[in-house]
Amino acid sequence: MAIAGGEKKLKKPWQGRFTKDTTDAVLKFTASLPYDRRLAFCDIRGSIAHVEMLAEKKIINVDEAGQIISGLEKIRGEIADDCFPYDLSFEDIHMNIEKRLTEMLGSLGGKLHTARSRNDQVALDMHLYVKEEIETVDRFLKQLQETLLVLAERFEGVLIPGYTHLQRAQPVLLAHHLLAYFWMLQRDRERLEGALRRADLMPLGAGALAGTGFTIDRQLVADKLGFKKLYENSIDAVSDRDYIIDFLSFSSVLIMHLSRLCEELVIWSSAEFGFIELDDAYTTGSSMMPQKKNPDVAELIRGKTGRIYGSLMSILTVMKGLPLAYNKDMQEDKEGLFDTIDTLKALLPVLSEMLQTLTIDRSRLAAAVDDDYLCATDLADYLVRRGVAFRDSHHIVGNMIAFCKEEGIRLRELDSEKRSRFHPAFSEDISALLDPAKVAEARVSRGGTAPSAVREQLQLARKELAL
Amino acid sequence: MAIAGGEKKLKKPWQGRFTKDTTDAVLKFTASLPYDRRLAFCDIRGSIAHVEMLAEKKIINVDEAGQIISGLEKIRGEIADDCFPYDLSFEDIHMNIEKRLTEMLGSLGGKLHTARSRNDQVALDMHLYVKEEIETVDRFLKQLQETLLVLAERFEGVLIPGYTHLQRAQPVLLAHHLLAYFWMLQRDRERLEGALRRADLMPLGAGALAGTGFTIDRQLVADKLGFKKLYENSIDAVSDRDYIIDFLSFSSVLIMHLSRLCEELVIWSSAEFGFIELDDAYTTGSSMMPQKKNPDVAELIRGKTGRIYGSLMSILTVMKGLPLAYNKDMQEDKEGLFDTIDTLKALLPVLSEMLQTLTIDRSRLAAAVDDDYLCATDLADYLVRRGVAFRDSHHIVGNMIAFCKEEGIRLRELDSEKRSRFHPAFSEDISALLDPAKVAEARVSRGGTAPSAVREQLQLARKELAL
Amino acid sequence: MAIAGGEKKLKKPWQGRFTKDTTDAVLKFTASLPYDRRLAFCDIRGSIAHVEMLAEKKIINVDEAGQIISGLEKIRGEIADDCFPYDLSFEDIHMNIEKRLTEMLGSLGGKLHTARSRNDQVALDMHLYVKEEIETVDRFLKQLQETLLVLAERFEGVLIPGYTHLQRAQPVLLAHHLLAYFWMLQRDRERLEGALRRADLMPLGAGALAGTGFTIDRQLVADKLGFKKLYENSIDAVSDRDYIIDFLSFSSVLIMHLSRLCEELVIWSSAEFGFIELDDAYTTGSSMMPQKKNPDVAELIRGKTGRIYGSLMSILTVMKGLPLAYNKDMQEDKEGLFDTIDTLKALLPVLSEMLQTLTIDRSRLAAAVDDDYLCATDLADYLVRRGVAFRDSHHIVGNMIAFCKEEGIRLRELDSEKRSRFHPAFSEDISALLDPAKVAEARVSRGGTAPSAVREQLQLARKELAL
Amino acid sequence: MAIAGGEKKLKKPWQGRFTKDTTDAVLKFTASLPYDRRLAFCDIRGSIAHVEMLAEKKIINVDEAGQIISGLEKIRGEIADDCFPYDLSFEDIHMNIEKRLTEMLGSLGGKLHTARSRNDQVALDMHLYVKEEIETVDRFLKQLQETLLVLAERFEGVLIPGYTHLQRAQPVLLAHHLLAYFWMLQRDRERLEGALRRADLMPLGAGALAGTGFTIDRQLVADKLGFKKLYENSIDAVSDRDYIIDFLSFSSVLIMHLSRLCEELVIWSSAEFGFIELDDAYTTGSSMMPQKKNPDVAELIRGKTGRIYGSLMSILTVMKGLPLAYNKDMQEDKEGLFDTIDTLKALLPVLSEMLQTLTIDRSRLAAAVDDDYLCATDLADYLVRRGVAFRDSHHIVGNMIAFCKEEGIRLRELDSEKRSRFHPAFSEDISALLDPAKVAEARVSRGGTAPSAVREQLQLARKELAL
Repeated sequence: MAIAGGEKKLKKPWQGRFTKDTTDAVLKFTASLPYDRRLAFCDIRGSIAHVEMLAEKKIINVDEAGQIISGLEKIRGEIADDCFPYDLSFEDIHMNIEKRLTEMLGSLGGKLHTARSRNDQVALDMHLYVKEEIETVDRFLKQLQETLLVLAERFEGVLIPGYTHLQRAQPVLLAHHLLAYFWMLQRDRERLEGALRRADLMPLGAGALAGTGFTIDRQLVADKLGFKKLYENSIDAVSDRDYIIDFLSFSSVLIMHLSRLCEELVIWSSAEFGFIELDDAYTTGSSMMPQKKNPDVAELIRGKTGRIYGSLMSILTVMKGLPLAYNKDMQEDKEGLFDTIDTLKALLPVLSEMLQTLTIDRSRLAAAVDDDYLCATDLADYLVRRGVAFRDSHHIVGNMIAFCKEEGIRLRELDSEKRSRFHPAFSEDISALLDPAKVAEARVSRGGTAPSAVREQLQLARKELAL
Repeated sequence: MAIAGGEKKLKKPWQGRFTKDTTDAVLKFTASLPYDRRLAFCDIRGSIAHVEMLAEKKIINVDEAGQIISGLEKIRGEIADDCFPYDLSFEDIHMNIEKRLTEMLGSLGGKLHTARSRNDQVALDMHLYVKEEIETVDRFLKQLQETLLVLAERFEGVLIPGYTHLQRAQPVLLAHHLLAYFWMLQRDRERLEGALRRADLMPLGAGALAGTGFTIDRQLVADKLGFKKLYENSIDAVSDRDYIIDFLSFSSVLIMHLSRLCEELVIWSSAEFGFIELDDAYTTGSSMMPQKKNPDVAELIRGKTGRIYGSLMSILTVMKGLPLAYNKDMQEDKEGLFDTIDTLKALLPVLSEMLQTLTIDRSRLAAAVDDDYLCATDLADYLVRRGVAFRDSHHIVGNMIAFCKEEGIRLRELDSEKRSRFHPAFSEDISALLDPAKVAEARVSRGGTAPSAVREQLQLARKELAL
Repeated sequence: MAIAGGEKKLKKPWQGRFTKDTTDAVLKFTASLPYDRRLAFCDIRGSIAHVEMLAEKKIINVDEAGQIISGLEKIRGEIADDCFPYDLSFEDIHMNIEKRLTEMLGSLGGKLHTARSRNDQVALDMHLYVKEEIETVDRFLKQLQETLLVLAERFEGVLIPGYTHLQRAQPVLLAHHLLAYFWMLQRDRERLEGALRRADLMPLGAGALAGTGFTIDRQLVADKLGFKKLYENSIDAVSDRDYIIDFLSFSSVLIMHLSRLCEELVIWSSAEFGFIELDDAYTTGSSMMPQKKNPDVAELIRGKTGRIYGSLMSILTVMKGLPLAYNKDMQEDKEGLFDTIDTLKALLPVLSEMLQTLTIDRSRLAAAVDDDYLCATDLADYLVRRGVAFRDSHHIVGNMIAFCKEEGIRLRELDSEKRSRFHPAFSEDISALLDPAKVAEARVSRGGTAPSAVREQLQLARKELAL
Repeated sequence: MAIAGGEKKLKKPWQGRFTKDTTDAVLKFTASLPYDRRLAFCDIRGSIAHVEMLAEKKIINVDEAGQIISGLEKIRGEIADDCFPYDLSFEDIHMNIEKRLTEMLGSLGGKLHTARSRNDQVALDMHLYVKEEIETVDRFLKQLQETLLVLAERFEGVLIPGYTHLQRAQPVLLAHHLLAYFWMLQRDRERLEGALRRADLMPLGAGALAGTGFTIDRQLVADKLGFKKLYENSIDAVSDRDYIIDFLSFSSVLIMHLSRLCEELVIWSSAEFGFIELDDAYTTGSSMMPQKKNPDVAELIRGKTGRIYGSLMSILTVMKGLPLAYNKDMQEDKEGLFDTIDTLKALLPVLSEMLQTLTIDRSRLAAAVDDDYLCATDLADYLVRRGVAFRDSHHIVGNMIAFCKEEGIRLRELDSEKRSRFHPAFSEDISALLDPAKVAEARVSRGGTAPSAVREQLQLARKELAL
């Protein structure tokens, strides 16, 4: 066997000790280029910061650094102009860029990899990427919250039946109902902030796993790239995928919230409820049934829950039981994350617009609310205020309702005499108790559905958004 | 508002009652064309069978049918030649094909949709597609089983330590160990057959959900397309995604099995075990560490477990709680399935080849097996045959081992006198009991690790594959 | 260190080489007794078969076997009478039984463990248990199917709106809708049969992993216990948990189906739909709102989906990447399985009874079906029969509906002259096309909703159940 | 029908309008008492705060409040003394307590429910419970971190091979490796703090969903119970399960981390690695193989991953697509949470103790580290410092290693002349580069494995714990 370095003509940066190339099938199976291309700009940003630091620390000289940076910028241009020569045989975007750089600069291009391993390089790129996308997603979330506030104001005073068990429970303001989603989103954003905090750790300098003997300055790189903190353990730096799981946990709770909202939009759009009508632009028809107007967008958002939960489960499964530090399994961290980011960025604005353009059917809503059984709690409370224990009053009103159901009449059709047979206090005029608007108005407890309480809630919500 | 049909100029087949087009964002969000293109050939096959039936049942005339079929075949050619004009604004592959057909044939193209809805059409395409792919996957599985048989023969007589809890337990034949995976795969194929049975139901004729009033012949279509059975309930036909879940359940168990095998390949490739060496073509190096030879392929297969479990969880989540019949959420049934099929078709042949090309280190294996603690069970059994209850003999041998550990010696280094202090029967020559080869040979129970038993097992395995 | 077997006073069968006992916390953490007690009877059945075989093969003598069997039967009695002295320090039910046997019989009790390891013993018990429970679950499933048939007959002729996207689509028979669930359950039972086939493998004789040197007869044990097949590889026999995953996959699809049914029950019970009323016995009230009647049982069944999906994901996660053969992780195979079995055995009969006792509101259903937009497909088909391409006819009818919506009228309120402006063929009498009953009647395609087709379907369904 | 309240003799607080009791099967199916008993003390604490507030706000009088509080305290005593008369027919712990109170106080007991619904009451209990348990779990986590610090100090200076792909990569300090887990746990605790923040919202006063008309003071209740914030929307307050999902997301990431650690403990305990020995107290033996010492505890912790991931998936599935506000499905939020809490509280201290008591085999470790391929990166870096581009130097060293492998020699066995054939710079003395201790010492970059860097890291770690 020959022992000179230059004699073997192998392509990949790591092939010194190998006597045989990977097969095409293996290459295709293991390459991440088809999906990690989106990291190109982050990779270049990270490399430039790294090279600048190497020069500042005199690990390479300033002139070399300048050439490398120019080369990287030229590559950035090629990628932006879509004329970069991607080559699958170089596995991933990182090696593609390095190879292109070496084509441009010869051996000098190889200096970019000084004091750096692909492990910490890819980790850096992913952190940069996730941080950027978190900002975008947060902006869309805020827009969705603002949309909810707009609707809450637009529909001021509109009552709907509040439901538990999908059974009409008590009258509530539509605004109040919509604001419930505002607070869910507020928690989602808090959760996203936590994910950001865990993504905001700078891994470069960890090398393959053990750090490096070059006198690098990791803090300098962090400052250049806008990181708040450094990983303080190099093995952890290349083994950690927590920030990806955190993002997917956040996304799972978010899409769960949205699936609830969309379930309501679907139900409310049914002929039987008929509370809302979605704009034509956010519905589609049927290829067979000419009359159909389907809430496809709402359904599809609800359906996206599957994909996002699946991606969370996927990364959790991948990471289970892996010894430290890097294992190839961890390459599977990307596609589920990318897909989730794309999904959220697609659905959040569409959902906002769909909400903004929906209309409500005030008469259908009014009819639904005008169901005096919704006022039963207040009848019971009325007795409580007259000294009856709540449990007893609940029974009394329950019996009244059973009686009405049997007779096929409404509560308000019971005359004073009949009412008094259930409890003497009911002989008085109780019509206010059976008016859903008055019933809602009475619920003035903080966070309650009374218009005054909802107005205060709106103020708090605006404050949260600094509006 | 104008009332003549021709005046509005809307593009989609379902837009008669709509006054507004969907926005581009909505279109992009709801379109499935980017991923359902792969159904094109199945769609055409299904459409041709449908049209033939319509003609045979005289619902359309033979001449019309002929033109439609010619058109569809031309489209098939365009797709094969990659010159088909895909148009995202037509949402999915089905409407793209229909639109192209209408361009070719004018109004006549629209007759293809007689007695058919997109719901049953898409269902048909998916069934055809899944059936085809199941066959392919099964073929790859069989190849993998054959590979295991080849290895079992190649490594005849080679002993390895059998492990429980990753602690050496008893000597076993490597062939025996490998055959354990053969039987797992055999169950996987049985499971796949179940998935096929549930995919082998013909949905066409279900219409949107209620069937059709045209005098179609569903059995005829099923015969033309090679289906064993029909859906006997039209609502079920368009609501059912069981066959997709079945495929993903099968895939999940399969990849779990393979993750176990790959875990072993990774462990066995470690410097510490050193039992096997993977061929260079199935390993990769490190960008930083020149000495590394990493079992990437094995790790990546193990890592694919995440993606497949995730896709199973995804479709289960999507389907939970959906009322009958079709809901747009169900469009989310495709990508996880397609990805799983692609993943299996990529990894199965790579795994087979990697196994075929691995080499074993016989001396490392021999050294590992030559650990006489592996024979402890047989020492205990020896006492049992001399009338000691197993529990007592287990204790006695346990004590012997504790003694050896403390003394830092091997069992075979205990002389007859020392042995007899544990039990008089041990004063005899027990060297055969401490020879791992003999210990393995003794395990002649059916399915056991004795060479004779393993040979019988191999025969059974060959028979299962009809080799 | 002392070297005689009897001197150490350790409790567990495996403690010969140990110098220290596990701590209480460890014991509590690792013991499975609290949940594997339910395997007691299976364990005893399996042990008796094993002992009988040992005697028949003359590995122990007949008299010893007789004493052991008597002991085991006595223990069975103690467990049945709830006077068995469970002892957590003996980890699991298997060691508890063995210890009790040894109390009764002295050293002889230890002979029960001849040619057997806890690994194959526990595997046997689990297979016996799963096989039994599969039969029970299948019986409940069949009852649920019978209930659906009863309802389909009871509600003969009742129409409901068929839905897609929760939008009214076409009129269907309620019987037809209910039968869709019949076929889902039929597939579930087919899937369960697959799970049974994979459970019906006899593992005993695998020993710890490598088989045994005693001249046992595994087929004899299988015959005694009613197993169809043997595991043909001892390592596989103790490593396999496929049958548990198969059962949980089956359960996941089943509960998904039931979640769809229960979602419909909940929606149909709402004030807005009002199609059905659940019997008081299957609903509950509110602690605060006296008028409420909540479909708790239906909701809770829907909610059980989470628990069952979770258990599937749990076992898949546990098994991922485990090297052969047994690892302690695999002890985690039990609780999710047991919980799922208990859940199914609780909910299936409750669901059957809830369905049997529900009542329908015929007037609400009639009103819902009397929505002539449901007949739009048939108007389009009418034009098709007069030579219009389906796509054109779909547009024409779509325009008619848009016109009616704008005018606020129903299709049947369009007079002949107005109709003919959409298409001349509409000048004729089309009232039959707008009668939902006639529309349903027309869908005579196999599996369609026409009463005649549904009757045929019912016949097929009965045949499947051999009724 | 009779119309007086007292005539019907139904047991449950909500049965006023019902004419029929739930069946026993339904009761058993829907009752949560078997598992929500653990909420008893939280329930009483919450009720006392509620009653005090009612009295302070003069909604009930002080004397009544006093009697109710005394009653509740008496009940607390009964529960503590295990003499409380649990009654399954009262469904849950909340109604059991209320019923007992009513037995004690008559009708007055019913006043406890004034201005409160079971929905907000249960929500309050769960929040109190989760907050308490988070504190406990956090304490255990901190102990585990402290254990890691103790070990890092105890094993100061000990080198192990650092791994990527389970292939030896570079020498690292064992302390460094252990500290990687410290930082994972640190992030886990940060995540737990986020979960706490989302649990620290006071729901009482939300009523069934809409708030209440009684002039309650929610802030007062929050202050009494130590809540930081209130839910600002009553519908959200009773619909929110985010804090449970947050806890389970935290737990999933935590157990993933621990599964990695335990995987390493298992691998390191194998005969082939032989790096560590677990204390007898944290291992168990085999029922069949007297020599076995199995790392059961480590395996079982790794196996618990399945259960915790499963519980996360479970609650996510339950919540998907549920309309607001409360639905009975949400009762399924408890068991997975409780099981996870119990699991963590059991395994964390056991893991800490197991780590504290493990011993390392210094000679095995030294032998493993004395593998001069681990120094390959440093050879390449040596050339880089002499002006060779890293990519070229990587190739050169790769070739040297391939040569050595072929020759069957170690790098240090290459003489100066042979070395210089790979690169002239290698003619110099490079023995320091081939000494693993020196190689590790060189990695002084922040977070790197040099003893000095690890000491700094330890300082930072201590600071995080405020030690």
